[in-house]
Amino acid sequence: MLNNLTGILKDELDTPVLLIDMDIMESNIAKMARYFRTVNADLRPHTKTHKTPILAHKQIEAGAVGITCAKLGEAEVMAAAGIKNILIANQIVTGQKISRLVNLARYAHIMVAVDHEENIENLSRAAQQKGVKLQVLVEVNTGMNRCGVSAGESALKLAQKLDKAKNLDFTGLQGYEGHAVAIPDFDERKSAAEKALSLLAETKEILEKNGLQVNTVSGGGTGTYNISGQHPVMTEIQAGSYIFMDSYYRKVLKDFDCALTILTTVISRPNRDMVILDAGMKTVTKEFGLPEVKDIKGAELTGLSEEHGKLDLSKSNLELKPGDKIEIIPSHGCTTINLHDDYYAIRDGKLEAVWNIAARGKIR
Amino acid sequence: MLNNLTGILKDELDTPVLLIDMDIMESNIAKMARYFRTVNADLRPHTKTHKTPILAHKQIEAGAVGITCAKLGEAEVMAAAGIKNILIANQIVTGQKISRLVNLARYAHIMVAVDHEENIENLSRAAQQKGVKLQVLVEVNTGMNRCGVSAGESALKLAQKLDKAKNLDFTGLQGYEGHAVAIPDFDERKSAAEKALSLLAETKEILEKNGLQVNTVSGGGTGTYNISGQHPVMTEIQAGSYIFMDSYYRKVLKDFDCALTILTTVISRPNRDMVILDAGMKTVTKEFGLPEVKDIKGAELTGLSEEHGKLDLSKSNLELKPGDKIEIIPSHGCTTINLHDDYYAIRDGKLEAVWNIAARGKIR
Repeated sequence: MLNNLTGILKDELDTPVLLIDMDIMESNIAKMARYFRTVNADLRPHTKTHKTPILAHKQIEAGAVGITCAKLGEAEVMAAAGIKNILIANQIVTGQKISRLVNLARYAHIMVAVDHEENIENLSRAAQQKGVKLQVLVEVNTGMNRCGVSAGESALKLAQKLDKAKNLDFTGLQGYEGHAVAIPDFDERKSAAEKALSLLAETKEILEKNGLQVNTVSGGGTGTYNISGQHPVMTEIQAGSYIFMDSYYRKVLKDFDCALTILTTVISRPNRDMVILDAGMKTVTKEFGLPEVKDIKGAELTGLSEEHGKLDLSKSNLELKPGDKIEIIPSHGCTTINLHDDYYAIRDGKLEAVWNIAARGKIR
Repeated sequence: MLNNLTGILKDELDTPVLLIDMDIMESNIAKMARYFRTVNADLRPHTKTHKTPILAHKQIEAGAVGITCAKLGEAEVMAAAGIKNILIANQIVTGQKISRLVNLARYAHIMVAVDHEENIENLSRAAQQKGVKLQVLVEVNTGMNRCGVSAGESALKLAQKLDKAKNLDFTGLQGYEGHAVAIPDFDERKSAAEKALSLLAETKEILEKNGLQVNTVSGGGTGTYNISGQHPVMTEIQAGSYIFMDSYYRKVLKDFDCALTILTTVISRPNRDMVILDAGMKTVTKEFGLPEVKDIKGAELTGLSEEHGKLDLSKSNLELKPGDKIEIIPSHGCTTINLHDDYYAIRDGKLEAVWNIAARGKIR
C-alpha cells in the first residue's frame, strides 16, 4: 500500500519519516565495493546498520562476499530473503537459539563466533543432531574488552577443541577493533587498529604452527576499512555504517556521504528564534550527540524530548512556521534506523520506493 | 502463536525480552486510581508510555476518564481498540494529519491542543467538511519552553478565536510542567509545579472574565500527580510512567514500584569480574542513565553498545557464566518500550500473556 505513494514529492510525505538519498547511498556502496577490488580482503557488510534485505542484496551485487549480522533474528530475516552467506558475529549460547541456529544452517551457509569451551560442545551436539555443519570463528579480544578470548594460547585452546568437534569447521578468527574505529585522527586510528590487528596476526601464526589452518580472519568497521582492509592478516571486513554514514561517523571519515535523513515538520513556533519539530527521541537517537540540520546555515538542534525537537534559529536567517518541513541528519544511523518501520527512498526529490526494515527490533 | 508459550517459566523465555511484573503493575494502576478518587481532578493516563490498548483499557476500568496520546498514530491504534475518549496532547498541523484527525473523530471523542491561529482555521475547515466536532484545548507554556503560547492575553486571543470557530469546541487549557516533574526534592518539585500551575490559574481567570467557559485544564505527570492532582485549577492529570515506573523516576518518587524489566542472558565471560549481556542500546535506552541490575547486590552495568551490555561483578559475590539469565531495570521506560514488539506478562514466575505493543513506532 505504501508503495502506491511512489512518485510523490519528498515534501508531500507525512512526517517524521526516514529518508534515503538513493544517489548518495548507491555512491557509498559503489565506492566501498571499488576499494575492496583493490585489496586482498573481502567486504562482508554488517547489516545491523540497515536491517533490510534489499540493501544487503545491493551490497552483494556490488561485490560483497556475504553479510554480517549481530543477532540470530537478523540472520533469519536475511536468510528468508535469499541471502546465502551469513556471519553471525556473536556468541549464540542458549539452547533455544542454538536450535534455531542449526535449523537456519539448512537454508544458508552460516558462520558463527565462539569464545567459550562449553559453547563449542553445545553447538557441536546440536549440529550433529540436525545433521548440519557450522563454520566457526574463535573470537579474540583485540582491545575492545567486550567478547572474545585473549590472543595466543587461549585462542589456540579453543581452536584445537573446535578442530576436533564434530559437525563444526574451525574456519578462523574474529576480532573487532571497535575501540579504534571512531578515533578522529587518522594516524592515531591507524596505530590503534594496527595494534589490534597484530594480536590477530600473532594468534594466527601460533595456530598455524600448531597445524591449524586459518582460512578466515574477520573484523574491522567503516572507520578502519582502509586500514584493516589492507592489512595482510585480514580476509574480510565487517563495515556497516558506510552505506548511509551519520553525522558522528562523518566527523571521523569523509570518504562517504550522509545518505540518511529524517524529514520533520515544525509543529509549533514559540518565538522567532525557536521552533518545535515533530521528531524526538522516538524518531532519532542522541547517544552520539544531537542530530544535525541539513542545508540550513545557523540552525541548530538544542534538545530532543520523546516526541519533540527544539530547533534554535537565532543564528539563522530562515523563518519557519508550523507546517514547514526540514531535514535532519541522525548522529547514529544504526540505532535510529531501529526505531523505524520503513525507509522512504528518494531520488530526484521524488519517492522511488518504500522498504520495510524487516529486521528492525530483531533483538533475539 | 506467542501466547502458546503461556505457562512456561520466566527463565525459559528467549532473551532479551521485555517483562511486566503483573502484580506490581496492577498495584501501581490501583494505587493511582485510588488517589484520584480522593481529589477533584480526573486521571487521564498518558499512553505514550505503554503504547498498548489492553493496558489503556485496564487504566480506564480502574477509573481513568480517558487517555492521553502524544501522536495521532497512537490515537488511531487506541481508537481502533475501542478507546472512546482520547486527548492528543499535541499540535496536529499538516493537511494530511488534520484529515486523519477529523476521520478519527467519527470513532472516538477527540480532544486536541493548539497554540497557533492558522491551525485553528485549518482544523475548523476540515471538521466542517467532515461534519464532525473537535474539542480543543489552548496549550499554555507554563515554563517548560516547548509548545504553547504565553499565559494570559495570548491564550485569551486563541481561546476567543476558537470560541467562534465552527465545528470546534473551546474546551479549556493544557499546560505540562515537564520541567518540574523529575525534580528529586519534593518541596522544590512542588514549588516549581505550583509556579507553573499558577500561570494556568491566572489564564483561566482572564478567560472567564472574558466570558469564556474553561471546563477542562489538563496537564501534570507522574512526578507531580499528588501536587497538580490536588491543585484546584486542574481538572485532569496526564500521568503515564506510574504504570511501570523506571529506575530514573523511581529516584524521584517511591509511591510506585518498578514493574518493567528486561530478562537478558550472559553470552560471554571475559573474566571473573565481567560478563557480557545480550542486551544493548537496541534493547534498552540509556539517555537517563544505564539500567540497574535487579536483585543482585554489587552487580553494576558499566556500558551498553548496540547489542551488548557490560556487567561488572567485581563488587558482587555472584559468579555468572554464558547461558545464565538476569533481569535489568530500564532507566527510561517510555523509550525502552518503544524498542520492543511485545510485552511478556509474568505472574508467580510464569508467563501469563504476550501483548503486542501495537502503537510502538507510531511516530506519525
